[in-house]
Amino acid sequence: MELEFLGTGSGQPSKFRNVASIALKLLDERNAVWLFDVGEATQHQILQTTIRPRKIEKIFISHLHGDHIFGLPGLLSSRSFQGADKNEPLTIYGPKGLKSFVTAALRVSETHLTYPVHFVELEAGTIFEDETFKVVAAPLKHRIEAWGFRVEEKAHPGELLIDKVRADEIPAGPVYGRLKAGETVTLDDGRVVNGQDYLGPAQPGRVVTFIYDTLPNDQTADLARYADVLVHESTYGQSREEVKLARAHGHSTSRDAAKIAAENNVQRLVLTHISARYIGPLLKRFITDVKNIFPNTYVARDFDIVDVPFKKEQHGSK
Amino acid sequence: MELEFLGTGSGQPSKFRNVASIALKLLDERNAVWLFDVGEATQHQILQTTIRPRKIEKIFISHLHGDHIFGLPGLLSSRSFQGADKNEPLTIYGPKGLKSFVTAALRVSETHLTYPVHFVELEAGTIFEDETFKVVAAPLKHRIEAWGFRVEEKAHPGELLIDKVRADEIPAGPVYGRLKAGETVTLDDGRVVNGQDYLGPAQPGRVVTFIYDTLPNDQTADLARYADVLVHESTYGQSREEVKLARAHGHSTSRDAAKIAAENNVQRLVLTHISARYIGPLLKRFITDVKNIFPNTYVARDFDIVDVPFKKEQHGSK
Ligand SMILES: [Zn+2]
Ligand SMILES: [Zn+2]
Repeated sequence: MELEFLGTGSGQPSKFRNVASIALKLLDERNAVWLFDVGEATQHQILQTTIRPRKIEKIFISHLHGDHIFGLPGLLSSRSFQGADKNEPLTIYGPKGLKSFVTAALRVSETHLTYPVHFVELEAGTIFEDETFKVVAAPLKHRIEAWGFRVEEKAHPGELLIDKVRADEIPAGPVYGRLKAGETVTLDDGRVVNGQDYLGPAQPGRVVTFIYDTLPNDQTADLARYADVLVHESTYGQSREEVKLARAHGHSTSRDAAKIAAENNVQRLVLTHISARYIGPLLKRFITDVKNIFPNTYVARDFDIVDVPFKKEQHGSK
Repeated sequence: MELEFLGTGSGQPSKFRNVASIALKLLDERNAVWLFDVGEATQHQILQTTIRPRKIEKIFISHLHGDHIFGLPGLLSSRSFQGADKNEPLTIYGPKGLKSFVTAALRVSETHLTYPVHFVELEAGTIFEDETFKVVAAPLKHRIEAWGFRVEEKAHPGELLIDKVRADEIPAGPVYGRLKAGETVTLDDGRVVNGQDYLGPAQPGRVVTFIYDTLPNDQTADLARYADVLVHESTYGQSREEVKLARAHGHSTSRDAAKIAAENNVQRLVLTHISARYIGPLLKRFITDVKNIFPNTYVARDFDIVDVPFKKEQHGSK
């Protein structure tokens, strides 16, 4: 599981940062890539990476400002062009209005996608859940309707302790599968055994939280709690003037993001949606200031890859 | 007057060619830039040039396929962001449906432009004319409604031959302005003089023709006649297999374009909208083949600048 930052800028593209998009690469976990926002030229950024558009399984859209969605029609078209077929559907989660924008763009351009697209209109709570992942959405506080996302990987069950199974002379067969699934099983010799007694420690799943454009609000903390990685917008730095600008435009400062991370047991904070003003010495200052509040902070650049490691506690010391 | 090629590819962006857009830079002529088609990430390409979005005065859209229009909403937004004001209007000429696409994208993203945008729905004939330029549109033949454009610069009137004026003892004053305008004037001493007799040779205006996606058709010749530069799509090369592909997708080959140039007294042919398949030896072959038919052909690459010089006949030998 890793994050690839496709666009880390805000508002409009600059020479160094494209507009918003992040790939959550779940190749080992589900042979899929999820995108969080799709600013204009996201498909161009993808061209510079190893990501294959056909692998994009889900797209989550935080809000409808142009710098977060104008890359969608082109990306969907190119995914078609590149041969995605009817067995490679795509699900798009976004605010009300997204579907009509996308379908209007495809209609006017007479683009006929070669794969199915499902739209899911965001509501607070669990918006997706299967055997391995769960995604929770909550409303944030921007100039327009805006959403944050918490991606929870489910725990990886412990391994079957094969030595212990053999020591107890449980005969090999389909019963091993049931024990591995944690079931209670009656053996042919009448013994009743509990799979849980034969499993190693479970590996807790990882949590990644995405908070794009928002003022400080009372929902972010819940989404961010115990996150392995919290990706948070930080359009501005921390000076009084910057705070004013942030508030005027419905945005957060790096201090806002660092505070959330510090107060909610976040492992690592990654800042994105950075104003183009932060280059050179201003960017250095920006980075130093936020690390003073939350040391394990990283300010993302376009094309950065950030690993999301398993929690280490399970396997000994950090 | 020069052309700057912002995107010379077809269908979808590739590593070497972005989707369609060309800037016609009229900085000396009218302190303005005109764009022909606006594929996705045109604004990103512009970032790498000296073009200032505020200078973009007119945009002409050939047809509504995504690779020709998906960059429009973002470009319009950024032009706002960069401070274009109510005295810097923009006129967009395009097929029916373009306005509703653009306004839907701006509406859903709650983008409020800081300058006026006028939409002009294309009809065959003169779509724009003022003192210095005239633009003619004609319908082409693609999978959907598609248009070609001929941009005609008006003749630059000859200079006032001041030595001749003085030799004839015409007294200085406002009368010089009227003579320069070619008017017939009655002098204070009763003489009637014709301005035309006191003007050097007029400098004929230049003609640039834009032919994007189309099958060979009976309109292109009229648009291209005597063009100083004919910009023509050439999605494919000339082999039998390539001709088949071109026809199947509603496109032209390099031979189609070269034939038009050769038969219509075109000075220079510039090919664009090149399939991503043409790289390395295939591109070399592509170039050689077309030059065999029309030697003064250039195959554009992204960021190429092509000058549109005045016709040289006026001033002597070529
Ligand atoms: Zn934003
Ligand atoms: Zn095209």
